[in-house]
Amino acid sequence: MSDRTLIDAEKRRQPSPVRPRQGADPVRSDLGRLTVQCADRPGIVAAVSQFLTDHGANIVESDQATTDPVDGQFFLRMTFHRPGLQAHLDDMTKNFTKALVEKFEVTEWSLRDASTPKRVAIMVSKYDHCLLDLLWRARRGELPVDIGLVISNHADLASEVRTFGVPFVHMPVTRDTKPEAEARQLQLLQGNFDLVVLARYMQILSADFLASVGCPVINIHHSFLPPFAGAGPYERAKERGVKLIGATAHYATEDLDEGPIIEQDVVRVRHSDNIAALKRRGADVERLVLSRAVLWHCEDRVLRQGNSTVVFS
Amino acid sequence: MSDRTLIDAEKRRQPSPVRPRQGADPVRSDLGRLTVQCADRPGIVAAVSQFLTDHGANIVESDQATTDPVDGQFFLRMTFHRPGLQAHLDDMTKNFTKALVEKFEVTEWSLRDASTPKRVAIMVSKYDHCLLDLLWRARRGELPVDIGLVISNHADLASEVRTFGVPFVHMPVTRDTKPEAEARQLQLLQGNFDLVVLARYMQILSADFLASVGCPVINIHHSFLPPFAGAGPYERAKERGVKLIGATAHYATEDLDEGPIIEQDVVRVRHSDNIAALKRRGADVERLVLSRAVLWHCEDRVLRQGNSTVVFS
Amino acid sequence: MSDRTLIDAEKRRQPSPVRPRQGADPVRSDLGRLTVQCADRPGIVAAVSQFLTDHGANIVESDQATTDPVDGQFFLRMTFHRPGLQAHLDDMTKNFTKALVEKFEVTEWSLRDASTPKRVAIMVSKYDHCLLDLLWRARRGELPVDIGLVISNHADLASEVRTFGVPFVHMPVTRDTKPEAEARQLQLLQGNFDLVVLARYMQILSADFLASVGCPVINIHHSFLPPFAGAGPYERAKERGVKLIGATAHYATEDLDEGPIIEQDVVRVRHSDNIAALKRRGADVERLVLSRAVLWHCEDRVLRQGNSTVVFS
Amino acid sequence: MSDRTLIDAEKRRQPSPVRPRQGADPVRSDLGRLTVQCADRPGIVAAVSQFLTDHGANIVESDQATTDPVDGQFFLRMTFHRPGLQAHLDDMTKNFTKALVEKFEVTEWSLRDASTPKRVAIMVSKYDHCLLDLLWRARRGELPVDIGLVISNHADLASEVRTFGVPFVHMPVTRDTKPEAEARQLQLLQGNFDLVVLARYMQILSADFLASVGCPVINIHHSFLPPFAGAGPYERAKERGVKLIGATAHYATEDLDEGPIIEQDVVRVRHSDNIAALKRRGADVERLVLSRAVLWHCEDRVLRQGNSTVVFS
Repeated sequence: MSDRTLIDAEKRRQPSPVRPRQGADPVRSDLGRLTVQCADRPGIVAAVSQFLTDHGANIVESDQATTDPVDGQFFLRMTFHRPGLQAHLDDMTKNFTKALVEKFEVTEWSLRDASTPKRVAIMVSKYDHCLLDLLWRARRGELPVDIGLVISNHADLASEVRTFGVPFVHMPVTRDTKPEAEARQLQLLQGNFDLVVLARYMQILSADFLASVGCPVINIHHSFLPPFAGAGPYERAKERGVKLIGATAHYATEDLDEGPIIEQDVVRVRHSDNIAALKRRGADVERLVLSRAVLWHCEDRVLRQGNSTVVFS
Repeated sequence: MSDRTLIDAEKRRQPSPVRPRQGADPVRSDLGRLTVQCADRPGIVAAVSQFLTDHGANIVESDQATTDPVDGQFFLRMTFHRPGLQAHLDDMTKNFTKALVEKFEVTEWSLRDASTPKRVAIMVSKYDHCLLDLLWRARRGELPVDIGLVISNHADLASEVRTFGVPFVHMPVTRDTKPEAEARQLQLLQGNFDLVVLARYMQILSADFLASVGCPVINIHHSFLPPFAGAGPYERAKERGVKLIGATAHYATEDLDEGPIIEQDVVRVRHSDNIAALKRRGADVERLVLSRAVLWHCEDRVLRQGNSTVVFS
Repeated sequence: MSDRTLIDAEKRRQPSPVRPRQGADPVRSDLGRLTVQCADRPGIVAAVSQFLTDHGANIVESDQATTDPVDGQFFLRMTFHRPGLQAHLDDMTKNFTKALVEKFEVTEWSLRDASTPKRVAIMVSKYDHCLLDLLWRARRGELPVDIGLVISNHADLASEVRTFGVPFVHMPVTRDTKPEAEARQLQLLQGNFDLVVLARYMQILSADFLASVGCPVINIHHSFLPPFAGAGPYERAKERGVKLIGATAHYATEDLDEGPIIEQDVVRVRHSDNIAALKRRGADVERLVLSRAVLWHCEDRVLRQGNSTVVFS
Repeated sequence: MSDRTLIDAEKRRQPSPVRPRQGADPVRSDLGRLTVQCADRPGIVAAVSQFLTDHGANIVESDQATTDPVDGQFFLRMTFHRPGLQAHLDDMTKNFTKALVEKFEVTEWSLRDASTPKRVAIMVSKYDHCLLDLLWRARRGELPVDIGLVISNHADLASEVRTFGVPFVHMPVTRDTKPEAEARQLQLLQGNFDLVVLARYMQILSADFLASVGCPVINIHHSFLPPFAGAGPYERAKERGVKLIGATAHYATEDLDEGPIIEQDVVRVRHSDNIAALKRRGADVERLVLSRAVLWHCEDRVLRQGNSTVVFS
């Protein structure tokens, strides 16, 4: 039985409860979301607004940023209400391309039904705090996601994950089997998910993997960045007497821990906190920061530009 | 010599350095700011955007909020770049009224040259921390304000204020002289200022005063709101063992401390903090919160609706 | 079968994993904890230190507070290392009473083996966020507790709780059955637990219940205190445009929400946060604040004095 | 006229108001402070407590830390009340040496009259925010310091400083004159001050200077540490899309920005903050962090151990 079949069987047996619960945090239907990125130029906001109005949509939320009033980069996120949106989405997409993409040299854009949850896969090793927080928030309806798969290089968290009705696939990785393991991971992920979340996955993903997976990958880094370099960052931090412990969620890129930052936060520590306490407090920040990053990404609030981000949070 | 003459004389003698310094935090010229409030309805963003485009303006920042997608209240703040803005501002104002105000039943709106600092008067009693922070930030160019007058019911802070080149007028207030004192204060304030800031002014202003002063009044409340009621709030807080001390900046209204909140913040306290320490920490929060509220107000980031605010910070 | 039997059966069937895991956050054995409260007077620290030294103990942590250098109240918490502590604890307790309690008129004191987890019962209604956070932290070994029972007036969370190997008892409460329900609750709780945690338990406990339960009761209040009075606090807060949402953990007393505060925290909110978002952010603060309060209480860091607390965190 | 004479003349002419004001934050007289550092060993707390009791002192505050219960390093800070302290301080100092220093192999200790403010000199370049904050807090009585001298390599802030009644000495520094300038600085500082504060002093002090100045030197670093390496840290941070801006106060050591950390803090930033806004927000954090570090140092709350610190705040 292939992994794919396993998942399908698992899904049939036990419909995943880790989807936005009906009624928990009601997502109004007929809400759409449009994001646009291009070089800033006169008339772009007016044109986009007019486009939506012409298509029967009422703008209910709008965020916009420009890196510089002159020759800057332009970022737009609009949420709109369009009765019967689902039936019109294809037409709107086609018309947007024709009417605006070329004219304003739009480099990135997306147009989505806000009520469709993003399909998310999680990769994890042994630490459970980030994983459980995501599963638990998803079940509460706090995250607009459908978590369809958890992949781990260890078997420890299997029963935990399956309690949530989510398939868990154990894929051990050693130095020798890494290429093969990544190939099998890609088989499960490609085309099936809109987002992969590394919830303390302790293996380094190859550049090939990132190039092939076909969707963004969000990582949580157990440190405020830039960090204390090298091994034992908490030990190094303790030696230096740091007063704040942090975490950073960012998009994974080929350069380890150098990807665009989505969210960071810190927590105050005291000299009476030993290494174990630093790690415990660090874990609390990690799960908060990662859950915010996933929420904002899934609500299309994070627009990426080079190695930076604009976050409309 | 009337107070007004005194101020003029003072101004002639020593040009106020408490204006945005050239070059400190450069305000690009030809930047304008438009705010709009009305019932939400389809097409409003498109219409406003089109209006600006038609008047040769490029939108460089845009914030928008809706209280509810259906039948909600709509709030918009746009910053735009228009070469030669100063010369076109009157025309734009006239045209905006004709083209949009009636059609969209706009209830509140403003159109301003962002490079013109707001004229600010400060009222204060004896505590200097909020006052000095504002004077000092204004001199550094951190606040887009022209502080033209300080009124106090005590003489203590006179030389301090005049060091900044700002006129200081001492107006004692007793129960008996209050109506008369307020009349003299209004004489100095009416028509001369865009904003009055109560920087720990310990007198209660009458409803008449607030109705007559002709501009918004911002107050700093030395507590997180709602507060411990009655006298000795820090003492009451200490008795209860509170862990956070706060401050609230709000628009002054007839109902004492019940006006729309602009900004709040808190700071953590410990059992080892005595009442004096609570007050010292409280003072730090007060001046930060007040300076943020004044900055955001002066950058037209605070839109007031009933007893609430939308703050595009 | 009585409730008590039920619990015993449950426990036999499935040993609770919700105890500090071996090795997770290692509690060094032979560590003891002493807390002392009395009127401040010369020599008390020296006498207590000498007492511990005389009993072969090395002080490894010490916190002390005095409300006032003259005629104040004195609070002490000491952690000490004593090889073979378990065997000496009774003797030390006896000797402490003889040597110090009378001489220094000690009003409150405790002497405990720090490696013995506190026995905790949780009462909950329908909201799961505080409950799950406690169960999950206990399983991770982040809380030095043995969670032995969950009582709820609703059946919703039964399977969730039992997944953690913790007994769940459903006890519906109506206006008419409340006295009887409290009597049955007391039957389960009295003598069996060192702490009761109200993790969003929506019933008001009677003064009789609190007087009879025989251990401290910690409550989480879904608001920064003092709160907006009356019904719909989040709605009231939204109307006023508050910028921070808070939560307060306190000891439950007869006066609803007026007990001594253990911990408070806040989170910043924006005008774009609707009521649902306020509640979601509020829930995040609630579980953090409650878990800190439980941790500190169980580590004997919270000393209560009248309606206030000294927290050695 | 030498610099020294200049200062004396200046002082005679205008008595510095930058000393703790009478009554502002009342320092109770007869309060003493004792700090002790040594290898942890049984009986040390008891012995110190007994010592104080034997000398007629009542301990009113006590903080203690141990890096490890077994073979760790021990840190103690005690505040005590001793009627007529001033007259007994010499005796207590002599007796402490005899009774405890050798017996417990105490490596660092201090015994001081808490009501004697520390003599502080400030070094600054052109940015005024940290300098003014210190001068202003000192005048308000928020810092237990006597600021006796400001040295700057630029003349810009002279009148500002002298307004506070504090001598200002302008000492230009070029690459060629640096050794000579440092020699003249040392002439002013050696033996005259208990603390030197670098309030955004942009020259690097030589190892010789730090070894010769004869008192601790506190520096404020305009970044959360470790920082973005190299030039233009705010620009680098902006490129990476960081979400928090920080500052770090630490003791200056030969290794630039590598000294023991006293305090750190951060402030949240948004994509809409341009470089100027990042710097403005950074300045707010810098002055808060530096003022806390100076306060805690001057209240003997910072105990230094190798490259780390224990801060009893």
